[in-house]
Amino acid sequence: MKQYVEKMKAKLFDIEAGKMIAILNLNDAKELGLFPLDRVEIYSPRTRKKTACVVDVTETMLKENEVGMFKDVQEKLKVRKGESVQVQAVAPPESVRFIKRKLDGNALSEEEIKAIVRDMGDNKLSEIEAAAFVSAVYIHDYNLEETVAMTKALAQDGLQIRLKGSILDKHCIGGTNGRTTMIIVPIIAAAGYRIPKTSSRSITSAAGTADAMEVLANVSLSVKKIKEITRKVGAVIAWGGALELAPVDDKIIKIEHPFSLDPTGQIIASVMAKKASVGAKYVVIDLPVGPDVKIESRTRAEEMAKKFIAVGKSLGIRVEAVITDGTEPAGPAFGPALEAKHVMQILEGERFDNLAQKSCELAGVLFELMGRTKKGKGVEYAKKLLFSGKALKKMKEIIKAQGKKILSSSDIKEARFKKIVRAWQDGEVSKINVRECAQLARMAGAPANKKAGLLLLCEVGDKVKKSQPLFEIHAENKRKLELAVEFMKKSRIIEMQKIILEKFT
Amino acid sequence: MKQYVEKMKAKLFDIEAGKMIAILNLNDAKELGLFPLDRVEIYSPRTRKKTACVVDVTETMLKENEVGMFKDVQEKLKVRKGESVQVQAVAPPESVRFIKRKLDGNALSEEEIKAIVRDMGDNKLSEIEAAAFVSAVYIHDYNLEETVAMTKALAQDGLQIRLKGSILDKHCIGGTNGRTTMIIVPIIAAAGYRIPKTSSRSITSAAGTADAMEVLANVSLSVKKIKEITRKVGAVIAWGGALELAPVDDKIIKIEHPFSLDPTGQIIASVMAKKASVGAKYVVIDLPVGPDVKIESRTRAEEMAKKFIAVGKSLGIRVEAVITDGTEPAGPAFGPALEAKHVMQILEGERFDNLAQKSCELAGVLFELMGRTKKGKGVEYAKKLLFSGKALKKMKEIIKAQGKKILSSSDIKEARFKKIVRAWQDGEVSKINVRECAQLARMAGAPANKKAGLLLLCEVGDKVKKSQPLFEIHAENKRKLELAVEFMKKSRIIEMQKIILEKFT
Repeated sequence: MKQYVEKMKAKLFDIEAGKMIAILNLNDAKELGLFPLDRVEIYSPRTRKKTACVVDVTETMLKENEVGMFKDVQEKLKVRKGESVQVQAVAPPESVRFIKRKLDGNALSEEEIKAIVRDMGDNKLSEIEAAAFVSAVYIHDYNLEETVAMTKALAQDGLQIRLKGSILDKHCIGGTNGRTTMIIVPIIAAAGYRIPKTSSRSITSAAGTADAMEVLANVSLSVKKIKEITRKVGAVIAWGGALELAPVDDKIIKIEHPFSLDPTGQIIASVMAKKASVGAKYVVIDLPVGPDVKIESRTRAEEMAKKFIAVGKSLGIRVEAVITDGTEPAGPAFGPALEAKHVMQILEGERFDNLAQKSCELAGVLFELMGRTKKGKGVEYAKKLLFSGKALKKMKEIIKAQGKKILSSSDIKEARFKKIVRAWQDGEVSKINVRECAQLARMAGAPANKKAGLLLLCEVGDKVKKSQPLFEIHAENKRKLELAVEFMKKSRIIEMQKIILEKFT
Repeated sequence: MKQYVEKMKAKLFDIEAGKMIAILNLNDAKELGLFPLDRVEIYSPRTRKKTACVVDVTETMLKENEVGMFKDVQEKLKVRKGESVQVQAVAPPESVRFIKRKLDGNALSEEEIKAIVRDMGDNKLSEIEAAAFVSAVYIHDYNLEETVAMTKALAQDGLQIRLKGSILDKHCIGGTNGRTTMIIVPIIAAAGYRIPKTSSRSITSAAGTADAMEVLANVSLSVKKIKEITRKVGAVIAWGGALELAPVDDKIIKIEHPFSLDPTGQIIASVMAKKASVGAKYVVIDLPVGPDVKIESRTRAEEMAKKFIAVGKSLGIRVEAVITDGTEPAGPAFGPALEAKHVMQILEGERFDNLAQKSCELAGVLFELMGRTKKGKGVEYAKKLLFSGKALKKMKEIIKAQGKKILSSSDIKEARFKKIVRAWQDGEVSKINVRECAQLARMAGAPANKKAGLLLLCEVGDKVKKSQPLFEIHAENKRKLELAVEFMKKSRIIEMQKIILEKFT
């Protein structure tokens, strides 16, 4: 690597790049023997600050002897417009070599994985390098040691929530609409345990747990606030996205997004890192299997279950993974307010359905896992807490502590526009397409419009008469309702088995 | 995919992104259900132009309802500052799905490869998607059909040079300093054949053929000019970089650069695409093997040789691949002017060395391949053209036609500063480190400073006396000479076997 230093004039651009980039004039780059994606260090003698950058070149934006910097670099260097800075070619971070090793199919050591996560966190890797890493992991996946190392590295990279006592947690591997979290968390806390739950907002579904909880309470909590509330009432249901619990994980997920890449090892590391960050000691993992959810095959679910348990063991976390039925909607509601309302009705004892049963079973697993009840008795205990109203009381405490909006299902108002969709014939409901339900709810405005969504009025197996209501579309503005109805006409939200296939008279 | 259209205000940034990006305010992105790396189409009702963009989001750069555009998008849309445009979510190009298929280890069809190359050419793929593709190809490589398909797609994507007659060509798989091209091309053209050679500039070596030829003549020629000169004098030696012969290939190479990725199939497609673009019918491929060059093992070279021939056959190109010795420098010179001078001395008949012999042998392969001579007689014929001065005469015609600078080796001036490095002891030269020679030449200023470089004064096996000159460092300014000397002290350009290991008296 060349060691000489070039003095250059800083040219500032009022743009965030989200990564550290130094832009050079093509001729300067040639002279320095630099190519796009090479590394330089920029040093400001005035502020005595330096930073490593990835090189990009231009033929028109800069004059010779100028170096272009976006806001990210400007802030790091505290540099001024036109200031003289030193630009020096430097070797790429060592982690680039480790990524190459992963591309070559080698298993990485704990130190190597730590270096990659650290450099991604520091924005030292280019998007291309990060994408190559994610691709290599997708193709070669992690072995158990690598998964454990990645989990630790992701967790250590971010903030940690340290609390005393037995910390419990649950996680569901995506793709369903049921808000079990909002039922399990108050049940667990009602039993006197701590469950500081961080949840995500929706990515492709009609609502994430954070979106639904936001209907009832404030979910943007600081780490300090999460600790404070958990100490006081035993639980929170907060949005995890802004907490920086595992920020590199968010970057990896961003890269996976366009291809829906989901290497098993990375999913497990991602989930377990967040559990480790909150100090969880007992965790139940819900793995719904079905054609429209993330895990499509039973075999894959079983493989994941085993890995979750093994990674947990390495981290001192007791994990129980349960495979659940993901072929039907987990509840009738799609959309933040509709889902929140449904959950509150369960807690209020107004209804007990599949979602309530599932929530009690998952809570029961946790009670058995930590020895609160004997094997086989967990679900009963969970139901007792639910039916006695203790879970509802706890939920109200949680809502108040987080910043109350709504305390009762009857206070959750309906959207302004509603369209009832009716059966177009007599028949039996043979299939409800979960993915299309979510898409329809999104077309209607969910999750940005809280009250928008879809409410099912039937279940698979129901025999319905022509023009009997099948579902409702809720929207907050007319245009979105129309768009949703239009989408509905092209989709197959509900499939019906005809009872009479043909008539002869 | 959402079908509704949002009206937004265009905010323009005076920056080239090198790709099509639409920047949205985070809140707008949420409202539209869009995430970074999703796709939108922007339409200007005023200019009636539209373009697909990859989404990026910001919290600070834009107000709500603004859409940020870099120059690339501005130019495509002919949009004005503040103008109202329509932004609509669209599905990603189909090629993203094909890249996923390659990540999954599937072989791609000709149509799928064509779509990927087309979308890369149109900047429709994000850097992350392109990097995932290159990573997948690195890990899974291409089969023969895919290599042929990639070759065709790369060649068809760019400009084509169509000329009548028998077109010959040669290519060397990187890493050496010998400029055989500048000897072979005039020999071939002196025999009456056409060889419109496009060459690269240096990437990591001291000089590329284009850098060395540029000492003698102009090398930035248009496709039109290349055709014109080839018709007139039978050959050119032009810089291929700006010709857009296979522009997507250049993008792929850019991504491979940080990791030195070099999947065999991609190298072959890259080389053969450029041969197909110039309409070559007979091609000799030089595959030097050695620890310091690109191909490190004989096995890999043999595998590549077979694939080159097979791909050539599929394209109607007769290929002969030769494995050559890459363990020693291909010539004594490192740096554009020094290499050009050495080549001219060979053409002028002033010297005949390994480089001259190798050039005649490679030219001989081409003569035999196309039936100009009998098997085994090609090299003799090549030497006849060299020794008779016909190749020199042809080289002068080429230089004049391209735009003359220098016609004779004696007119190539030496650099201003020169340092002679002498043997520090008696001994035998046991190794010359080619890679470090190139690095030293670069430290001294090559290839940007044409006259800078390194000139070897010894060969492997030479017995030298203490303080006998081993090599010269040439530089155009004193500082670079000092830096090169400093680098030399830390490196092992030349290794010596001691004759006397120890003395007893």
